[in-house]
Amino acid sequence: MKSMNFFSSTFKLGILGGGQLGKMLLYDTRKFDIYTTVLDASEEAPCKLACNEFHLGNLMDYDAVYNFGKQVDVLTFEIENVNTKALEALEKEGVKVYPTSKTLRIIQNKATQKLFYRDHNIPTANFSRFAYASEILDAVHNGGLTFPFVWKSAQFGYDGNGVKIIRTEADLKDLPNVECIAEDMVPFKNELAVIVARNPEGEVATYPVVEMEFHPEANQVEYVICPARIDEQVAKKATEVALKVSKAFNHIGLLAVEMFQTQDDAILVNEVAPRPHNSGHHTIESSYTSQFEQHLRAILNLPLGKTDSQVGGIMVNLVGAEGHTGNVVYQHIEDIMKLPGVTPHIYGKKQTRPFRKMGHVTIVNKDLNTARHIAEQVKNTIKVISE
Amino acid sequence: MKSMNFFSSTFKLGILGGGQLGKMLLYDTRKFDIYTTVLDASEEAPCKLACNEFHLGNLMDYDAVYNFGKQVDVLTFEIENVNTKALEALEKEGVKVYPTSKTLRIIQNKATQKLFYRDHNIPTANFSRFAYASEILDAVHNGGLTFPFVWKSAQFGYDGNGVKIIRTEADLKDLPNVECIAEDMVPFKNELAVIVARNPEGEVATYPVVEMEFHPEANQVEYVICPARIDEQVAKKATEVALKVSKAFNHIGLLAVEMFQTQDDAILVNEVAPRPHNSGHHTIESSYTSQFEQHLRAILNLPLGKTDSQVGGIMVNLVGAEGHTGNVVYQHIEDIMKLPGVTPHIYGKKQTRPFRKMGHVTIVNKDLNTARHIAEQVKNTIKVISE
Repeated sequence: MKSMNFFSSTFKLGILGGGQLGKMLLYDTRKFDIYTTVLDASEEAPCKLACNEFHLGNLMDYDAVYNFGKQVDVLTFEIENVNTKALEALEKEGVKVYPTSKTLRIIQNKATQKLFYRDHNIPTANFSRFAYASEILDAVHNGGLTFPFVWKSAQFGYDGNGVKIIRTEADLKDLPNVECIAEDMVPFKNELAVIVARNPEGEVATYPVVEMEFHPEANQVEYVICPARIDEQVAKKATEVALKVSKAFNHIGLLAVEMFQTQDDAILVNEVAPRPHNSGHHTIESSYTSQFEQHLRAILNLPLGKTDSQVGGIMVNLVGAEGHTGNVVYQHIEDIMKLPGVTPHIYGKKQTRPFRKMGHVTIVNKDLNTARHIAEQVKNTIKVISE
Repeated sequence: MKSMNFFSSTFKLGILGGGQLGKMLLYDTRKFDIYTTVLDASEEAPCKLACNEFHLGNLMDYDAVYNFGKQVDVLTFEIENVNTKALEALEKEGVKVYPTSKTLRIIQNKATQKLFYRDHNIPTANFSRFAYASEILDAVHNGGLTFPFVWKSAQFGYDGNGVKIIRTEADLKDLPNVECIAEDMVPFKNELAVIVARNPEGEVATYPVVEMEFHPEANQVEYVICPARIDEQVAKKATEVALKVSKAFNHIGLLAVEMFQTQDDAILVNEVAPRPHNSGHHTIESSYTSQFEQHLRAILNLPLGKTDSQVGGIMVNLVGAEGHTGNVVYQHIEDIMKLPGVTPHIYGKKQTRPFRKMGHVTIVNKDLNTARHIAEQVKNTIKVISE
């Protein structure tokens, strides 16, 4: 195996995007003493602190990405909204772009992504693609589509934006008239995720299946739980599906595969992210190899790290409380730090607003039920409010 | 409990020393989004990358330390060679200096440190103090001292410098004529260490006892092993002694207590370090709470983290190979990264020389014997050489 010679005095790793994921990735670049350079549009990017070089530029701008990429040996990204044409040009000129522009281009567009699953015989919810949202109504009238269904914008949806449940014609009224899909609603038992790592050599490793536990009323993910409390056969099937997706993409780096476990225990792929992912944050504390170290190992063509868990891990997202906008205060953070195996990760955003993602908390314990109990205490104790 | 309000927009944590320990400490300040400022004499200090502010200055210089300290709320250090008079002045003016100047002043001088143990009834090897090395010969001639013994310079010894085994009068010849001690040689079974954490509130936590395994011929520490493979009663006694030392110092932050287990299972304190320590590096991968996070929790008066091990941990120091001076190459690093549970930490020094400390490698495994076996493979595989 020939890894990138990242110890050489001229080696540069480029990271597109300077957000929280990039910041956590940068910690692990220090472990290996990798020279890093980051491109982001904001002077306030969290990555600015821990990289060797920081460049200002719009990630969707061809010239910004191309000129930045020309200066590095390996280029990766911590966010999907990146100019893929620039990545293609860089690949042609010998820059190692991992994940590749091809993987990213398919994933960037939800319609293309879904068609990719269909073409590769990967189980996913039924859907129809529309070039414009205005075509949906015709399909409904023709009987080609029946309520309810899930509308998803094909491009640039993020964290719930660009997704809407459509129950009546009235719900269609305010949709932006863009390329989109209409997807069957899947009544699922569990939402699961598997992170697959793969290096250019083709070595593959999968993390244990995690489970997203939803709030029974709010229908929001409250806890990411590792390992998922599911039947071993279901876990095996989910892992196999994730590996099939990884193989179809021929991807390099991390691929987080989000899946539904249906009422009859079928596994349907929901969507994927070609980067470190929220569903893997617990690995920092609970795994032999954190997802960030693993991403680095993969894109640098190093041997992959052991993906087993040392102990059970649960992640709770820290989001801004409703009714609070302004300078952030982490109320009762000391109380949660008294609980055993609890580590807060504060993202450093100075302003909170309702539901803004401000950090996460990891809870680890040899006994997963104990961890789940402590996670609930954490959730009920800490509040992200304004001054 | 009232912790430091480290989330406030004006809070500043000052770190004296910008070396490797500071660098590892800085990673964990990012977790809590703490604003950091570092003072170091070198433009090349490893900390420069990850702190918010970096200031150039000599740590032994009163004005440099005082002026730096005046700008922070909490001041800590990652190295003992610091101007304590400046720390005292800062304490008087309300800066929280943790560990305190008093603790540091006692530890800085090995004679004072040994006298402190004697005064506090803490078991330690017998010794005599001399204002000048030239007085030692008189003591030998008077029969007050007999060969062999260990000579230690009272001040500024570091990593084996300022320590010499004296077997004959001839060995005395080249000693620097400074304050020193002559200490009984202790034929020990094991060298052990316990890291104690203590916050201003008085909350105390101890990490499991670790063992330094020596090379049978070279008499150099090869492995730090956690937990130590010793009798439970001995571990209990070592922990009790470490707690007694911690209490005597009334210290705040981390205190690494190095001890000898004698042939008849007595515990003698060798020396202490009031900071994150080589004997705790394995905690990054193997413990619920890394020693660096724990140091921050302690000095910020936060609740201390759980100190149990998740799995067995072993640390191997990476030092420059003999016969190699120049641009460093980490030969076979990829081979050790293939082994399960192995993480290299590269310190980023560009030049190697024989025995220079260039990094460390952690090996974690549920089974400590397996970890020990893998650690030996690591030791025999990776070589720190020059180009």
